[in-house]
Amino acid sequence: MADFFVGIDLGGTNIKIGCFDAEVNLIARTSTPTGVDMGPEFVAEQIVEGTRQLLAEAKVSIDTVAGIGIGTPGPADYPRGIIIKSPNMPKFKNTPLRDMVAEKLGKPAILENDANVACWGEFAIGAGRDINDMVFFTLGTGIGGGIVSNGELVRGADGNAAELGHLLIYPDGRLCGCGQKGCVEAYASANSTAARAREAVEAGGQSSLKKVLEQNGEITCKDVFEHSAQGDALAKEITEGTAKALGLICVFMLHTTGPKKIVFAGGMIAAGDLLLESIRRHFKEQIWNLKQEPLEICFATLGEDAGIIGAAALAIHEKNLGRL
Amino acid sequence: MADFFVGIDLGGTNIKIGCFDAEVNLIARTSTPTGVDMGPEFVAEQIVEGTRQLLAEAKVSIDTVAGIGIGTPGPADYPRGIIIKSPNMPKFKNTPLRDMVAEKLGKPAILENDANVACWGEFAIGAGRDINDMVFFTLGTGIGGGIVSNGELVRGADGNAAELGHLLIYPDGRLCGCGQKGCVEAYASANSTAARAREAVEAGGQSSLKKVLEQNGEITCKDVFEHSAQGDALAKEITEGTAKALGLICVFMLHTTGPKKIVFAGGMIAAGDLLLESIRRHFKEQIWNLKQEPLEICFATLGEDAGIIGAAALAIHEKNLGRL
Repeated sequence: MADFFVGIDLGGTNIKIGCFDAEVNLIARTSTPTGVDMGPEFVAEQIVEGTRQLLAEAKVSIDTVAGIGIGTPGPADYPRGIIIKSPNMPKFKNTPLRDMVAEKLGKPAILENDANVACWGEFAIGAGRDINDMVFFTLGTGIGGGIVSNGELVRGADGNAAELGHLLIYPDGRLCGCGQKGCVEAYASANSTAARAREAVEAGGQSSLKKVLEQNGEITCKDVFEHSAQGDALAKEITEGTAKALGLICVFMLHTTGPKKIVFAGGMIAAGDLLLESIRRHFKEQIWNLKQEPLEICFATLGEDAGIIGAAALAIHEKNLGRL
Repeated sequence: MADFFVGIDLGGTNIKIGCFDAEVNLIARTSTPTGVDMGPEFVAEQIVEGTRQLLAEAKVSIDTVAGIGIGTPGPADYPRGIIIKSPNMPKFKNTPLRDMVAEKLGKPAILENDANVACWGEFAIGAGRDINDMVFFTLGTGIGGGIVSNGELVRGADGNAAELGHLLIYPDGRLCGCGQKGCVEAYASANSTAARAREAVEAGGQSSLKKVLEQNGEITCKDVFEHSAQGDALAKEITEGTAKALGLICVFMLHTTGPKKIVFAGGMIAAGDLLLESIRRHFKEQIWNLKQEPLEICFATLGEDAGIIGAAALAIHEKNLGRL
């Protein structure tokens, strides 16, 4: 009797659930809006009922499910499976979500940081499937990160390692939402890229983005990349600043955990080669000349299902090592 | 019959050899000047003969030796046990030192980066003996590093991870010997601390270090720390710059591999609390305010034997896991 695994991606907007076989092939998937206002008991029940329905539709008996992986944003006590608090789910406070789900479904479960889970998905069957050492950045509203070292996630002493959006690239620089000054997230996230463009336009910079700001009341990161591709000098400068910040963290990470690949994911990679080639160029300009580095900088391949894929793949990995 | 292990610290100046029991207790030690001019065959023979003599004096039969650990500076192909080249041992070129020693002594051996080995020594029986996640910096002429994550050394894809002296703290800043601009080594090593002081004095800064420069023709890092302790304002500013650089890399490493402790070793820690308290203060000033961090910043405890202790302890660890 083959084992099946459930991967759950719990966000403040949606709960995504996937059913997978032991080779991480997707059997079935579903999604439902997260009932954040209803509190943790309700959300746990959504997860449990959603899983039961999905398994029924896929004709997978719950008896053949060997484990459940859940990815969710921090801060959490991941080793103990507890969501400490959540900016997007304010009613969650010291919620033992892992055990709530595990007990209701009668199956072992793990809880892991959402960026770590997406990192693991890419590592298991995506851009990093052929290597042992990988670093992962997700470029969205903020910047998240994950590290795989010698085939294992780097979790750190309290389970909150790889907060790679808060690497200080310009000490005493731009103020980040975390309280630090000069984080990469304060320069190169989608929000920060847009903010830097807006600031430059409002400071009187000549740019085709000026019209965008006047018409839409805002400039988005997508606007910046589009106008950069169209040749606008200010948009290009902002884009270069973002790519340089990302190239710098590639240098950082090469000297830290020594990955074979650094994989970028998230909404911003829609910018394509414009962004990727620029990151690679800045990396080459900043890296030492002691030896040729084997590092490959690339984009993720799994898209929006990375969360459920990674959660299931991590549950499979833990199961295979007898840790689930 | 109890197992014994040999720990070897191969540097450009001395070869240190220690004999240890399986609990990393030092049984006997010896040291001999490295015959760098005589080439790799000679040096390998020094290691082999030195080990045989040490074991004979300690009345430890070679038959009871279970493994040998060798620590040496890079760049090397550590997984294959080959020293690629060595600034301090110029006749070493693609030298398969691990296998040369292993074959002559008829015992399994490992080759590892000297900073990683010292890191492992502190992790096994020094400042990090009670934890699973540690970061290690050795502050000397340059800055070396080591990372232990979940009880294992982080070696990276090519065995050359944790080059932590080359973390970029001030992009486009001071030129480092490695070719990068703004490495922590270019600000906070003993050489760079001394160089920054000399530059400040030569630029006309008022300081009691001016007399030192005139009398000795140079300013050392020790001079800087001493004059800082005596209240000289310029020396204090330079010392603060060094401590800030080291505080920044503590922030950086906390967000990367999430250690429980960051341990500083090397000649510079002779500066004592003057340096340590300043590093801790700068860390607290730079770190985010999202949550209280459990990180402890401290000094190493093993002193000059860290190299042989770490090499033996790593051989024991690899043996215990069946990897030696």
